Amino acid sequence: MTFDAVAIGDRIAALHRAAPLVQCLTNAVVMNFTANVLLAAGAAPAMVDIPGEAGPFARVASAVLINLGTPRSEQRSAMLEAVAAATEAQRPWVLDPVAVGSLPVRTALAARLLEFHPTCIRGNPSEVMALAGAGVGGRGVDSVATPDVARAAAQQLALHHHAVVAVSGPVDLITDGTTDIRIGNGSPLLTKVTGGGCALGALTAAFLGCERHTALHAVAAATAAYTIAAEMAAEGVAGSGSFAVRLLDALGTLDGDSVRRRLALA
Amino acid sequence: MTFDAVAIGDRIAALHRAAPLVQCLTNAVVMNFTANVLLAAGAAPAMVDIPGEAGPFARVASAVLINLGTPRSEQRSAMLEAVAAATEAQRPWVLDPVAVGSLPVRTALAARLLEFHPTCIRGNPSEVMALAGAGVGGRGVDSVATPDVARAAAQQLALHHHAVVAVSGPVDLITDGTTDIRIGNGSPLLTKVTGGGCALGALTAAFLGCERHTALHAVAAATAAYTIAAEMAAEGVAGSGSFAVRLLDALGTLDGDSVRRRLALA
Amino acid sequence: MTFDAVAIGDRIAALHRAAPLVQCLTNAVVMNFTANVLLAAGAAPAMVDIPGEAGPFARVASAVLINLGTPRSEQRSAMLEAVAAATEAQRPWVLDPVAVGSLPVRTALAARLLEFHPTCIRGNPSEVMALAGAGVGGRGVDSVATPDVARAAAQQLALHHHAVVAVSGPVDLITDGTTDIRIGNGSPLLTKVTGGGCALGALTAAFLGCERHTALHAVAAATAAYTIAAEMAAEGVAGSGSFAVRLLDALGTLDGDSVRRRLALA
Repeated sequence: MTFDAVAIGDRIAALHRAAPLVQCLTNAVVMNFTANVLLAAGAAPAMVDIPGEAGPFARVASAVLINLGTPRSEQRSAMLEAVAAATEAQRPWVLDPVAVGSLPVRTALAARLLEFHPTCIRGNPSEVMALAGAGVGGRGVDSVATPDVARAAAQQLALHHHAVVAVSGPVDLITDGTTDIRIGNGSPLLTKVTGGGCALGALTAAFLGCERHTALHAVAAATAAYTIAAEMAAEGVAGSGSFAVRLLDALGTLDGDSVRRRLALA
Repeated sequence: MTFDAVAIGDRIAALHRAAPLVQCLTNAVVMNFTANVLLAAGAAPAMVDIPGEAGPFARVASAVLINLGTPRSEQRSAMLEAVAAATEAQRPWVLDPVAVGSLPVRTALAARLLEFHPTCIRGNPSEVMALAGAGVGGRGVDSVATPDVARAAAQQLALHHHAVVAVSGPVDLITDGTTDIRIGNGSPLLTKVTGGGCALGALTAAFLGCERHTALHAVAAATAAYTIAAEMAAEGVAGSGSFAVRLLDALGTLDGDSVRRRLALA
Repeated sequence: MTFDAVAIGDRIAALHRAAPLVQCLTNAVVMNFTANVLLAAGAAPAMVDIPGEAGPFARVASAVLINLGTPRSEQRSAMLEAVAAATEAQRPWVLDPVAVGSLPVRTALAARLLEFHPTCIRGNPSEVMALAGAGVGGRGVDSVATPDVARAAAQQLALHHHAVVAVSGPVDLITDGTTDIRIGNGSPLLTKVTGGGCALGALTAAFLGCERHTALHAVAAATAAYTIAAEMAAEGVAGSGSFAVRLLDALGTLDGDSVRRRLALA
């Protein structure tokens, strides 16, 4: 199967038809924006993240997102419950290892979560390198390295865990360990909106929730859709506040035409 | 007393004069938007939701909102403390039973909360039917049924708990079990903003906090005010991001004139 | 050193160069807006607020914000851990005592936190008076007194704890107990956006994180920058929703020229 603008457009249309139910166990800072990104893109978010509910819900969700940004004790339990259930019910799930490497509680949690084999790991270069054991994150939540620097770590991580690994940056890298896809769309303003990366993790789960095959292409399509919408939102914008609003607007109007005009495979 | 545009306009003006203090024990996803909706409409939000504080605060609040969207352990204790205090101090309170029926922890909690007789229960058709024992919710957080389907369940729930029940949908239904009010205002974009329904629960508490009599009309006035503001916000809007921003703007300018021009009792 | 528009402009430029890492242990309602304010202004937010991580992170952060708006049990432990580490590592930290005085759990917590000598205490008049033992807060989260009424309390609090105290209001008062700075910029719309005050606490930490000397001037510069951006955002705005968006935009473009044109020392 080829990965091109037509294939991405088809996946965007499929997502609108399926309206996948995406369970998010994510950090407290970005819950609202994440849910609004999913709604704008045509998915159905559900932030079910307490023990006793997270597991049962993961069995019926289309996909699950685990984001380690603010992993409180109760949420950590719910995360383990959710990924165990998702694994058993063969639901795809995405791990976003925010600030892993430099902070001890989430680093230990990430190690346990990895045993359940995420369908996709999405992070910045520092986080991906930390997960792969190739280094530790810079200042915790932002990244000092570039996607290319993290390439070897991403490939190694993908092969070791049979996962698709997506590394964010000016050029996004998506790899299953043998095939790389590089996407050059996006806007620096994404780094000026909190949850700019986290929301992509949720959207990635939404795309994975529409199909179980060719996870590499589903992850790449999510990345392309999101970063192209960001590009549209950034044009002539007054600042980061307006950009976040327009990103939601753009996700709602994004279609195959926009992708064909703008896709920048790198 | 008649329920018409003039009566709604009077209640909007009364809310601006009273600036009711609305205590919200609500879900983590929508706290920010809920507080901003209350502020825009002229109320004073206070998200006091920890044990040891929730009870004392409920005694001085004008009204209390209990929303079950992300009911963590500590918040569950605070909810029970708040409604016990609200009941004792005769404060009105609103129950928003998010995803009740399909998820076990909150379903058990809702049963305990109902013993304290909420002034108003606000939900989507699936949630109202689940609470009334007439069925279980669809996919958890969104609704598969329509308000009309839930009408019998809403009336039964209202009579059983001596509560006003508000069922959201393209046409909103508000009932005390004997009198129904149906309001046809609103916008489909409300379903594209996370907390679009939850914020109405908080605004309902605000309207109830201005007066203790004719709860049916207070709940209906809140619904009308909110859905008319949504209609104003939706006109010519670029997408769900801009819509949420403009909904806050519209709530700040809403007055009796807007209501008279737009009210669509159905 | 003089405190004037040029000095403030220099500090804004310094913040952009330093991109201080600001650790926020803040309330659940305003986390998202707070992070976006910091990002817009050029700082790097990190909401690390769980036990076991809050302390280690405080040692490497440029500054720490402690905001008591929704102090859940786990976060309370993390707050004590963070300020102990910040004190030991000589990091500046800001205390925002939301609704202290009228609510018991946070009032007791604030007393323990004060023993670690915050670099700055930022609050509304009621909160500052409650901390100083001069009275108790009005309705909890909003303020009934004016900054001038709280002046004596602010000075006493500053001298007793060797802290800079900032009292918000139509005219903001910043004092170290001997020197007062009064800033008349701002917009009433700041009281219509939840976290309008809380975000200033975080921005104050960011300015303090760029330098350790002349804390009085750093706090005043943060207040001036924020309230001038608010003034810019308020011009011709349609309501509180648009205002919040434009405030983020304005913080991103704010520079020495804007400050020189608008600064209103009172």
